[in-house]
Amino acid sequence: MKVGGQHFRTIWLNPANEQVVQLIDQRFLPHRFVIEDVSTVAQMAIAIRAMHVRGAGLIGASAGYGMYLAAIEGAGSPAVAGFDQHLANAAAQLKATRPTAVNLAWAIERQSTNIAKGKTAEEKIARALDAAKDIAAEDEEHCRMIGQHGLSLIEQIARKRDGKPVNVLTHCNAGWLAFVDYGSALAPVYAAHDRGLPVHVWVDETRPRNQGSKLTAWELGQHGVPHTIIADSSGGHLMQRGDVDLVIVGSDRTTRAGDVANKIGTYLKALAAQDNGIPFYVALPSSSFDWTIRDGSEIPIEERGAEEVKRADGWRDGQMLEVSVAPEGSPAANFGFDVTPRRLVTGLITERGVCKADEKSILDLFPEHAS
Amino acid sequence: MKVGGQHFRTIWLNPANEQVVQLIDQRFLPHRFVIEDVSTVAQMAIAIRAMHVRGAGLIGASAGYGMYLAAIEGAGSPAVAGFDQHLANAAAQLKATRPTAVNLAWAIERQSTNIAKGKTAEEKIARALDAAKDIAAEDEEHCRMIGQHGLSLIEQIARKRDGKPVNVLTHCNAGWLAFVDYGSALAPVYAAHDRGLPVHVWVDETRPRNQGSKLTAWELGQHGVPHTIIADSSGGHLMQRGDVDLVIVGSDRTTRAGDVANKIGTYLKALAAQDNGIPFYVALPSSSFDWTIRDGSEIPIEERGAEEVKRADGWRDGQMLEVSVAPEGSPAANFGFDVTPRRLVTGLITERGVCKADEKSILDLFPEHAS
Repeated sequence: MKVGGQHFRTIWLNPANEQVVQLIDQRFLPHRFVIEDVSTVAQMAIAIRAMHVRGAGLIGASAGYGMYLAAIEGAGSPAVAGFDQHLANAAAQLKATRPTAVNLAWAIERQSTNIAKGKTAEEKIARALDAAKDIAAEDEEHCRMIGQHGLSLIEQIARKRDGKPVNVLTHCNAGWLAFVDYGSALAPVYAAHDRGLPVHVWVDETRPRNQGSKLTAWELGQHGVPHTIIADSSGGHLMQRGDVDLVIVGSDRTTRAGDVANKIGTYLKALAAQDNGIPFYVALPSSSFDWTIRDGSEIPIEERGAEEVKRADGWRDGQMLEVSVAPEGSPAANFGFDVTPRRLVTGLITERGVCKADEKSILDLFPEHAS
Repeated sequence: MKVGGQHFRTIWLNPANEQVVQLIDQRFLPHRFVIEDVSTVAQMAIAIRAMHVRGAGLIGASAGYGMYLAAIEGAGSPAVAGFDQHLANAAAQLKATRPTAVNLAWAIERQSTNIAKGKTAEEKIARALDAAKDIAAEDEEHCRMIGQHGLSLIEQIARKRDGKPVNVLTHCNAGWLAFVDYGSALAPVYAAHDRGLPVHVWVDETRPRNQGSKLTAWELGQHGVPHTIIADSSGGHLMQRGDVDLVIVGSDRTTRAGDVANKIGTYLKALAAQDNGIPFYVALPSSSFDWTIRDGSEIPIEERGAEEVKRADGWRDGQMLEVSVAPEGSPAANFGFDVTPRRLVTGLITERGVCKADEKSILDLFPEHAS
């Protein structure tokens, strides 16, 4: 998508040196646009864990590129005991960075299987490079398709709105910054906007890290999509007033039966949507399905540092500052995700189309996972 | 309640000069404990509007003292055209400060009626002083009684918990800082804690002004009550996990039929409580009932400045700083309250006892409002 009129993806290979991965360090948005060079697995693990990059698809793509960097390291470093051992260590290191996002494990396993098929170090590196590019390209294409499938949902609502904007509420950031490009939840919004449909987005600020007010607002603004930032507690009131036509969120992991893990607070919005008869959609590429589990209660929920809740960070006088909000002596807890049960989900928007959030409907779209 | 071991109320008359009202300027909590001297109606209007004081009961008590200051001004100032005109102006000025809290209008009307009965300026001032003290004393006593009635609810749950703490979730600040003393939602918690029952409070941070992480956490900490601050989005997940036994919130205005206006986000917690079979109680003194309306949709919802959502303030290097979180060009909206429909409310905890949230049950407790 566009940044200051120029097209960007969230992650790419340095065109001048393909042994270096470049990514947008999202910690500085919306105040500074920083590009980070990543050339080791250790750096990539930090970038994922410390959320220089975040979001389901981008975590997967970053892990894919991370395994490519691991292959380079494994072949080149004299200190490394063995190529396969280094790759296994790298896989474990990357996998441990974020527990909830299933794209992480998915990308790492895909790379491990793929690299193992190479016979020489050179072949392994070449395979790793190809797969890293493929993972990113597929993510991009799947998100583009999600946009097209979601577009028809927005078009249906737009027809009833007589030219008034379709009001979409979203939580956290499931835009292009959370993927390689386009996004999941925001892909239909961009598709509608680009098609000339009037659309307006209510952006949950998404405490404690404010991915909504920092990232979603920024990327919508860069692309010219009308939007309004709200506190996370506001969505229910807006739905009661009739000011929300549609909720679209992303997912960090969705079970084969349709239970949806996503940013903490998604469940509350799903309850409010149900209570007010508003459609609640989850947009996700198939890489965000966990085909191994049915029940959302089996999804591990990441707990992050309590300080994120007790403090707030932002920009002041040209620098990033953190301020202390809560009493020093008060404990805090910081749950990253919650699980929205499938009974609250109107439908899933995937790269293959829209389906109901139940196992049969999901497997009708993805029959290769039926066994 | 206690601050550093010393007993405080939130508002009182300066013992050395009863023409000056003193109050805790809550904008600086939890970082600094500031006492403000208020000696004019204009100052009191600023204190209420700019939220030096806030919370249903404290707004009412502040308005009561504000009308007392108006009586002094009306009698004393040669520039004032007439006593009654000055009082009417003061009433209008105070009433315009916050639109949602019904205690404001209630206290002002009580004072206006009361002052009008005085025949001389001296008599009017004396009546205003008495009523201001009465409003504050009643608020204190009503909150104390709410604590006693709510205590029995906590005791019932504690019996089933086998010595494990009773986990109470609350939203915003409906503690003693929101009233003259004791609080509404937190009064039962303090009563249980003082009785030796193990109780733990999940404190919603309550964006955008963070009354939870700033005020509720502070006052619970000062009184020694175990608590944990969480992002506003966390409550649903905690309820799904079985980590919440009871929700108690306050109310800025409750209709005679039991619809509850309270801090934005309360409705979402009520939905989650219902979805998880958790009791959801609203604690309020009778001064927070609006006896003139039945339907919560008639309650005006305050919209505050958008900057509160786009920025965060806190403490750093010994000073209060505001940092900018969101993109400068992104609009924001800031709704102060939402309405929780009575169907989601397990019960109301009032100074006269606990009742169901329906008109008949409410009027059984308050038959004087039956007509």
